Amino acid sequence: MTSAPAHDRHFWFDFVSDNIGVVDPTVMNLLTEANTGTAKAYGEDQLTAKLQADFSKLFDRQVWVFPVSTGTAANSLGLSLLALPYSAILCHETAHVFNREAGAPEFFTGGAKIVPVGGNEGKIDPDAARARILELKSNQRSNTQPRVISLTQLSDWGTAYDLSELEQLAALAEECKLSVHMDGARFANAVSGLGVDPGKVIQAGRVSVLSFGGTKNGLMNVDAIVVFDAELAAEMRRRYRGTGQLLSKMRFASVQLSAYCEDDLWLKRAERANNAARQIASAFESVDGVRLAMPVHGNQVFPIISDDLETFLRSQGFLFSNWELGAKRFVCSAESRVETLLEALLQFRQVSQTGS
Amino acid sequence: MTSAPAHDRHFWFDFVSDNIGVVDPTVMNLLTEANTGTAKAYGEDQLTAKLQADFSKLFDRQVWVFPVSTGTAANSLGLSLLALPYSAILCHETAHVFNREAGAPEFFTGGAKIVPVGGNEGKIDPDAARARILELKSNQRSNTQPRVISLTQLSDWGTAYDLSELEQLAALAEECKLSVHMDGARFANAVSGLGVDPGKVIQAGRVSVLSFGGTKNGLMNVDAIVVFDAELAAEMRRRYRGTGQLLSKMRFASVQLSAYCEDDLWLKRAERANNAARQIASAFESVDGVRLAMPVHGNQVFPIISDDLETFLRSQGFLFSNWELGAKRFVCSAESRVETLLEALLQFRQVSQTGS
Amino acid sequence: MTSAPAHDRHFWFDFVSDNIGVVDPTVMNLLTEANTGTAKAYGEDQLTAKLQADFSKLFDRQVWVFPVSTGTAANSLGLSLLALPYSAILCHETAHVFNREAGAPEFFTGGAKIVPVGGNEGKIDPDAARARILELKSNQRSNTQPRVISLTQLSDWGTAYDLSELEQLAALAEECKLSVHMDGARFANAVSGLGVDPGKVIQAGRVSVLSFGGTKNGLMNVDAIVVFDAELAAEMRRRYRGTGQLLSKMRFASVQLSAYCEDDLWLKRAERANNAARQIASAFESVDGVRLAMPVHGNQVFPIISDDLETFLRSQGFLFSNWELGAKRFVCSAESRVETLLEALLQFRQVSQTGS
Amino acid sequence: MTSAPAHDRHFWFDFVSDNIGVVDPTVMNLLTEANTGTAKAYGEDQLTAKLQADFSKLFDRQVWVFPVSTGTAANSLGLSLLALPYSAILCHETAHVFNREAGAPEFFTGGAKIVPVGGNEGKIDPDAARARILELKSNQRSNTQPRVISLTQLSDWGTAYDLSELEQLAALAEECKLSVHMDGARFANAVSGLGVDPGKVIQAGRVSVLSFGGTKNGLMNVDAIVVFDAELAAEMRRRYRGTGQLLSKMRFASVQLSAYCEDDLWLKRAERANNAARQIASAFESVDGVRLAMPVHGNQVFPIISDDLETFLRSQGFLFSNWELGAKRFVCSAESRVETLLEALLQFRQVSQTGS
Repeated sequence: MTSAPAHDRHFWFDFVSDNIGVVDPTVMNLLTEANTGTAKAYGEDQLTAKLQADFSKLFDRQVWVFPVSTGTAANSLGLSLLALPYSAILCHETAHVFNREAGAPEFFTGGAKIVPVGGNEGKIDPDAARARILELKSNQRSNTQPRVISLTQLSDWGTAYDLSELEQLAALAEECKLSVHMDGARFANAVSGLGVDPGKVIQAGRVSVLSFGGTKNGLMNVDAIVVFDAELAAEMRRRYRGTGQLLSKMRFASVQLSAYCEDDLWLKRAERANNAARQIASAFESVDGVRLAMPVHGNQVFPIISDDLETFLRSQGFLFSNWELGAKRFVCSAESRVETLLEALLQFRQVSQTGS
Repeated sequence: MTSAPAHDRHFWFDFVSDNIGVVDPTVMNLLTEANTGTAKAYGEDQLTAKLQADFSKLFDRQVWVFPVSTGTAANSLGLSLLALPYSAILCHETAHVFNREAGAPEFFTGGAKIVPVGGNEGKIDPDAARARILELKSNQRSNTQPRVISLTQLSDWGTAYDLSELEQLAALAEECKLSVHMDGARFANAVSGLGVDPGKVIQAGRVSVLSFGGTKNGLMNVDAIVVFDAELAAEMRRRYRGTGQLLSKMRFASVQLSAYCEDDLWLKRAERANNAARQIASAFESVDGVRLAMPVHGNQVFPIISDDLETFLRSQGFLFSNWELGAKRFVCSAESRVETLLEALLQFRQVSQTGS
Repeated sequence: MTSAPAHDRHFWFDFVSDNIGVVDPTVMNLLTEANTGTAKAYGEDQLTAKLQADFSKLFDRQVWVFPVSTGTAANSLGLSLLALPYSAILCHETAHVFNREAGAPEFFTGGAKIVPVGGNEGKIDPDAARARILELKSNQRSNTQPRVISLTQLSDWGTAYDLSELEQLAALAEECKLSVHMDGARFANAVSGLGVDPGKVIQAGRVSVLSFGGTKNGLMNVDAIVVFDAELAAEMRRRYRGTGQLLSKMRFASVQLSAYCEDDLWLKRAERANNAARQIASAFESVDGVRLAMPVHGNQVFPIISDDLETFLRSQGFLFSNWELGAKRFVCSAESRVETLLEALLQFRQVSQTGS
Repeated sequence: MTSAPAHDRHFWFDFVSDNIGVVDPTVMNLLTEANTGTAKAYGEDQLTAKLQADFSKLFDRQVWVFPVSTGTAANSLGLSLLALPYSAILCHETAHVFNREAGAPEFFTGGAKIVPVGGNEGKIDPDAARARILELKSNQRSNTQPRVISLTQLSDWGTAYDLSELEQLAALAEECKLSVHMDGARFANAVSGLGVDPGKVIQAGRVSVLSFGGTKNGLMNVDAIVVFDAELAAEMRRRYRGTGQLLSKMRFASVQLSAYCEDDLWLKRAERANNAARQIASAFESVDGVRLAMPVHGNQVFPIISDDLETFLRSQGFLFSNWELGAKRFVCSAESRVETLLEALLQFRQVSQTGS
């Protein structure tokens, strides 16, 4: 059985991001099916009740799920449950919450300070984090005081924290009495890449609040704040409408998230995207002189390529971003079709070899 | 060609609100059609560009449209363009922005004070507003200073400001150097009820920022902030992501709003809802002892009914809210089917008369 | 031994407020004496350590004292320890925190809603409060949720809650899980008027955070936030600098507050002011046709007087405010000299009687 | 005529900061003299009116002065006039507003982002600033947008921007449509060090809002926000009370600031402090192996000294801070007496030479 987008030429060429794509056809069908009858507004409907059960099963423990319309809201509202004004949130220096959300984390928290920490491969270095925490704590009067560590999983460099890295940061957080927030805009890609149960990731990282990405992986402007603590969930309910995120026709968001979990659709989609990325990565690596700036743990590839190769690929119509460290960024979604790109790379390789 | 919801028994009985309903079938079809290919994220796509043109045509002047996911966000973020912390926003004492949005206007403005003003039929009394403004201005040191007047059109009592009422309040706003904000969660019902061009409503009220409702009238969690001033639009762009409202897959919101305008779909839907309300109103009025708490200008009816009638209607399965002033509230949408209710009222009338 | 201000004609005529006056001479002397040597900044000095001990003795339990420069900051920062954005703070409808602090409580709390409650004599009616709390709690989704009740002691009508009134409101707060805040800008006048230990007032009201007034009763722009809970005190320390209130040369504030407590200076000053008010009240009451709008529990008198009497008093040079309910307001400080006013009232009485 | 503090041993040994000291005796005398009679509250008194005139004369143009109780409030409230939430404020990476005010700038602005820029000697490098501004502007959607550049004069490394450096940054600000804020906690030391009129500094830097330091240079917890633009001053008035900074007994702050200007007291005090610093600097430089981490433009000296010398000085009872770059920090005030320190350094030099 074929899904229409598979034949869509856009997905042969456009690797700019994973938010440029479509709504998963299964999800779209369920949306259409759900478009009947009346339902209580503001999340008091049955589909939203079902969602709570579905996600609790997914994470193998009771959780509280709050659909929101943007990843920015998921992160910023989620962080506001854990941080106060005048407090500090530590994250990696490449994290979205530090420098790509236009001030939203500061706004939602009433002015918490986002404090960047270094670390290889887009992941927080525990020693650097510890040093920064101690420095902030050394002057309680003048410094914002750390309350939260925010982990991006997949990181903005496409890498995943493995369970032992999560445990190490969780131990640091516990030692320093910090809460752990996880920005999981690409949580599906990370979980698929790690090959572990999602609940294990949460457990290893002692995560209190997760931004669970949906939009980048086939939903229609739906992410979710997943809360792993009853008291925080109560506070979240109090903030839900006051931050402009409580959807009145909630059922149309909830049904997407439930559909997304069913039969592991979210993971299957992530796996397709990750596979596509791995194929692209291999193809790039087989070109002389190309190397990857980062290992590929999910759906993003960061090759460092020659000007010639860039010119060639752009002339063929491929779309991708310039990134830091001299790399390009290629992002795959479940709809991505890589054959054309693989072929182009093969062709370039042959021409180069012939030419040399 | 029939649309499925028309036969949906829910719409024969459920008059609780207009956010309990479905997505308009035409809109849903266009959504499905738009679900193909890639598009630039964050509103840089062609459908969002088209939306700007569509709405500029709708209002017969250049406007700037910003889709958002909730009416609360539309109001609160819109108000934040006009008010500062430490300032006052005047509204009717029954307005949503005063007491139904869980602190969102205060949060988005950083602490502006929402100041309620009285007035008949849910509409601000200009003299009461003037008196309140002068009182606040009389002590600039200790009082929050008024900057905005927010008009709810339809009001929370289902009534519409007519053009001359709008002009009167706009003159007051100009005299006192206030901006005018309009909460148009049910703007379609108001415009349809007044029978005037939407641009005339904006012009009469000298409205700077409009919350343009979509969700209550057939869209899938999509409202819009419509800005009528270039500088405010620039500021809105700066705040769009930082408040968690900039949708990454914006095209799926934009296409709904464009579809909504096409062939006056939004007004046709509102007209159907308003017609349903008028029929219900007439039927109630023909029952002895029933009177309407408010005139019907849109899709809401507020009958004051006997306990017997309430018991009878609830026993038949009708759903509706208890409201203030001893009234019940019946809200209609375009899908509402009123025949069953009309019949029930007729039946009650006959039984009562027989009984007496 | 005479204090210069006693002979100051200003204090014979000016009854506009109690923040128009001087710094107590004893306090000023101690300030001058303290002006020697160096001391650690930001409250790490010995005078500030002494202050903690002095106030713990004053309240007969461990307390944490945070000097601030304005009553507005004391109230607003104190409330921010107890309320969150999206929450509600209940207070009397005449309370400063509701309508006289230019949006400061909203700003410091990040947008909490200040909800006014009625009640006689400027004091919250427990039944009205309960009704309002239940109403807010009845719609957790749309209403800001109550977290704090703020009592003004003295109230803005110059009245004091007695211990049994405080106990009643404390019981309501406990029942509804609210914290109790006390705006004690004129706490000294209330305590003196009630004739009880200050600790009893705190205990009866289960007060968590007190704004302890100093400026209105003889200090130089120094009030204090007194916190009665260790955890709240820790949070207060974190917010102290981030809200711009942590004084670098703190010792000059601390020494004033310590001096103020020594030998009950604060209460002696309040007693003098209250005595002056009582004398004025009696004199007004002995004039035919004059009545007091409120009982006199502290240093404020609210007589309702004839136009003739007002004209006469103003012509003699007396300064006082027009107030609500048709009353005038006379406020006394420890420096007030009432003989001239008493004489004027006697003279007016005689002339009136002669005239009639 | 002698001033007591001159003989105070504290000032022979304590070089920790300039906020550990006393209130200037002249200022204290004037405070005592002003402590008579009544005055209108909240800045409507005559001393506050005089202050406006005094400062307008000082800056040779009309200015608006707002006394506040802390430098943190001066900076943060001042910045809130120029920045919005979701916007960026650029400053040097060592600036107080970036990392020493416990989140206050973020809180007062509702969440603006403070963006650090590098540069030698504690001063912003214009090229680095331009690069950072362009980078932020390159992604208007995701980045906070720059609105303000904040200059610290004296910088936190004790250095002053000279007029041509100010002009260069002002030109950059104008080009990029940024406002200029100046943190002048040690403005007096900078002006004295530069030997120019204060108005010239403001003019060269096109400064809109100045934090004018008083506390560090002899006042009793009084700094001032000086506003150079009528509209910003109007906005400042609206925010004055709502941020908890409007003093009710304002005259006691205003009289200090007026006294401070009279006969150039503020500059004479700064000159004494700067002279003391220069003497210390020379003495350190004459010790073998000691060098200054920074040039001395004001009242701070940052020598890099041997462990032996540190041990020796601490054993003699000298107090000073460890600083960055391996330096120590010595801060002088007008009361500092340096003879003892000079003698100790001479003694150390002699012992060292004998020893070697």
